[in-house]
Amino acid sequence: MPTSPSSSYSLTLRVEYANTIGMLGRITSLIGEHGGNIGAIDIVSITRATTTRDIAFSAADQEQVQVIIAALRTIESVDIIHVSDRVFLMHLGGKLEIHPKVPIKNRDDLSMVYTPGVARIAQAIADNPNDVFNLTIKKNTVAIVTDGSQVLGLGNAGPRAALPVLEGKAILLKEFAGIDAFPICLDVADADELVAAVKAIAPGFGAVHLEDICPPRCFEVEHRLNELLDIPVFHNDQHGTAIVVLAALINALSIIGKQSGDLRVVVNGRGAAGIATTRLLMTYGVRDIIICGKARGALTADQIEPDHPVLAELVPLTNPRGVRGNLHEALRGADVFIGFGERTILEPSHIAAMSNDPVVFAMANPAPEIEPSSIEGIARVIATGKSDFPNQINNMLCFPGFFRGLLDARASTVNDEMKLAAAHAIAGVVGRGELHEDYLMPSVFDRRVAPAVAAAVLKAATSSGVARRAAQTPALR
Amino acid sequence: MPTSPSSSYSLTLRVEYANTIGMLGRITSLIGEHGGNIGAIDIVSITRATTTRDIAFSAADQEQVQVIIAALRTIESVDIIHVSDRVFLMHLGGKLEIHPKVPIKNRDDLSMVYTPGVARIAQAIADNPNDVFNLTIKKNTVAIVTDGSQVLGLGNAGPRAALPVLEGKAILLKEFAGIDAFPICLDVADADELVAAVKAIAPGFGAVHLEDICPPRCFEVEHRLNELLDIPVFHNDQHGTAIVVLAALINALSIIGKQSGDLRVVVNGRGAAGIATTRLLMTYGVRDIIICGKARGALTADQIEPDHPVLAELVPLTNPRGVRGNLHEALRGADVFIGFGERTILEPSHIAAMSNDPVVFAMANPAPEIEPSSIEGIARVIATGKSDFPNQINNMLCFPGFFRGLLDARASTVNDEMKLAAAHAIAGVVGRGELHEDYLMPSVFDRRVAPAVAAAVLKAATSSGVARRAAQTPALR
Repeated sequence: MPTSPSSSYSLTLRVEYANTIGMLGRITSLIGEHGGNIGAIDIVSITRATTTRDIAFSAADQEQVQVIIAALRTIESVDIIHVSDRVFLMHLGGKLEIHPKVPIKNRDDLSMVYTPGVARIAQAIADNPNDVFNLTIKKNTVAIVTDGSQVLGLGNAGPRAALPVLEGKAILLKEFAGIDAFPICLDVADADELVAAVKAIAPGFGAVHLEDICPPRCFEVEHRLNELLDIPVFHNDQHGTAIVVLAALINALSIIGKQSGDLRVVVNGRGAAGIATTRLLMTYGVRDIIICGKARGALTADQIEPDHPVLAELVPLTNPRGVRGNLHEALRGADVFIGFGERTILEPSHIAAMSNDPVVFAMANPAPEIEPSSIEGIARVIATGKSDFPNQINNMLCFPGFFRGLLDARASTVNDEMKLAAAHAIAGVVGRGELHEDYLMPSVFDRRVAPAVAAAVLKAATSSGVARRAAQTPALR
Repeated sequence: MPTSPSSSYSLTLRVEYANTIGMLGRITSLIGEHGGNIGAIDIVSITRATTTRDIAFSAADQEQVQVIIAALRTIESVDIIHVSDRVFLMHLGGKLEIHPKVPIKNRDDLSMVYTPGVARIAQAIADNPNDVFNLTIKKNTVAIVTDGSQVLGLGNAGPRAALPVLEGKAILLKEFAGIDAFPICLDVADADELVAAVKAIAPGFGAVHLEDICPPRCFEVEHRLNELLDIPVFHNDQHGTAIVVLAALINALSIIGKQSGDLRVVVNGRGAAGIATTRLLMTYGVRDIIICGKARGALTADQIEPDHPVLAELVPLTNPRGVRGNLHEALRGADVFIGFGERTILEPSHIAAMSNDPVVFAMANPAPEIEPSSIEGIARVIATGKSDFPNQINNMLCFPGFFRGLLDARASTVNDEMKLAAAHAIAGVVGRGELHEDYLMPSVFDRRVAPAVAAAVLKAATSSGVARRAAQTPALR
């Protein structure tokens, strides 16, 4: 739970109060005393007797907002006219618009952009399907697809509730990578329907970004779609996260001076992120990984349910020493802890029981598995998923540039070469001379990251043979 | 076939020629002599010996372009550097972009537009699904959907070839009605897959615009989707066309002074437009309609194939006098001819055999069923689907305003009340005092049309009980 004011609870309070000396001070003090963080204060109107002002403030959570408002109501001669919620206001009418790149203002425009001229374009694509990349939006357009089965921390909230999240993702893709991304929120009952829907809509898109789909459905859906389609399909909750974790690990290993092949790693969490991270770390050369689940602790080959084919395939390749027991037991002597928010509480003693120079990536949400300040001096490198500690590991560092690279390559699929290249690119943005226990990862606002990732993905797509050659610029027809 | 230069063949020719007196004149004359229509001429560079210019011109078709270029090649000391096709250039990279309405420039923006703030929006929608209209793009967003089974005049050209057409439609919806429309080109094998795909993607859209879907699939798909979904589904090739035809008929009846109930109408074409127009005219009160097909002429109840349930249901309600025979026989004594481009050639004598004051809507493409100039003085009112004759009947007059009205009403479906209201609204834009044999319909660029149609559809949606009440502006949460 957040305990300090955050922009996610940004409010604007309109108050009218009697023109008495010190009234504004009383109001702002009261907001501050109850934990609110005052922003801009604007005058709305002044009369002889009263002043009306808009006071912006942020709070930690809804409860605190209510406490502040109740406190203000106790002041006589202060009238709360309304409280508007900036986060809700920013979402009114949605966050995306579609803009024409060419106008239709007169009959000439119409003849070229629409009928009859567009028939020539349609015919060209019918004759040469690859021209769809040149002559339509496909080249730069990504479908962000969800079934709403695992929306942020809300669980199976459904496709409608997922839409504002996907709109936010689309803004990030535009802002950081110039990509036109459109949210597709699917009302589907199962993996078959999800696969069928994405297959159906694929012709108009250059790539598919899967998001907020629950495991194990997400594994099956992504795998089947990459087999079926001639455009890449990337499940961000898996690979976006795995790639940024690997980037952080690459830089952490530079700091602690260990090699991937010698590492003992514990991954806590057997969901999308845990599985994808384990897989990518193995590709990177890590040989000793123990996956821990909430119920059973360290996973061993004999423990896997038959209805989870991905784990059934993966687990026997992990835990080479056959370690059994809970997370704390698995952590003994480990070099790296990677946690994905199964709400396991770690104690400093558990970290102290790790190998020398412990690396702790505590990415549980909303609070990390262990408070970073409690293991300063025990862990050598600490990172979390949050922005209020150093070393934030956030998949925003990956997906905009990754999709830029996929589109630039006109890639037909996603492969491990690209993922490794993207991780190295992210890690490489932090220069050797800058690398430090408290500067492991670039900021999510570092504008160098997306172009570096895009270039790395494009190069890997080309060298691994999954980039389509750029079609010729259409000549006279 | 077009016989005069059109913007749909707009080219720019870059030529370098010797600085001899009269060279530019020779070049432009030659283009003109071969039927090209010269536009702007710009200087690119001049040296002591040569001049390079860009010469824009339009042509009637590809053949003419080749003839012009071949002719220019015969002039010595003229070098054609390249010929660029403005229609293709305008389509490079597609015609649409997605723009964020809110920025993500810093951590505060991120906290409000994306995580963690967006979780509050997702939660609000999960709690109250109707809030999706307020807090996402759904409110103003239309899916333009096709399976590419009947793309313009190209037939079953496939979903990729349909994409530039749908992008053009999206521009029209934005330009004329402020709607954010996104093209969805479906790779589906049959009606079941098409219905499943549209049902799946529906949560993020406020309405569905079906386009370029072949009959009889289009009827089944539209009907099933309107039953399944809580948002309106409108097949433009059917109803957009039917509505503008009815608008034209309403105004034509004012001119000729006949009543709908007394009319004899012949509809030539048993496809999407013919069937929808017949249905809407019946709703309007026309009782005597004969549908003619290419193969069988006038349809009677005993002629219909069992695999076309829509015609099987409709035909017995038409042709009350049981007229048999070909189109020419059906036309004898008819008041109105409505043709939908089955390439039937009519002769002036066929029009002369109609009732007094014949009304001829000859909407075949690319050329009307009969040349309008050949029946001047025979037909009283003549309209076509083309812009190079008076009285263009174009469904552009309908669909932008119609969707604006559907979205404004948050309509749950489409009904006949809306269609009749839209037709009256389009007809009403031409004032009583202005109405004339040569001014039956407003221009497609008349900016009064879309708002009038939108208002009429909104009103009809409300009075027919299919408008959702506007949800409350979200208050503090």
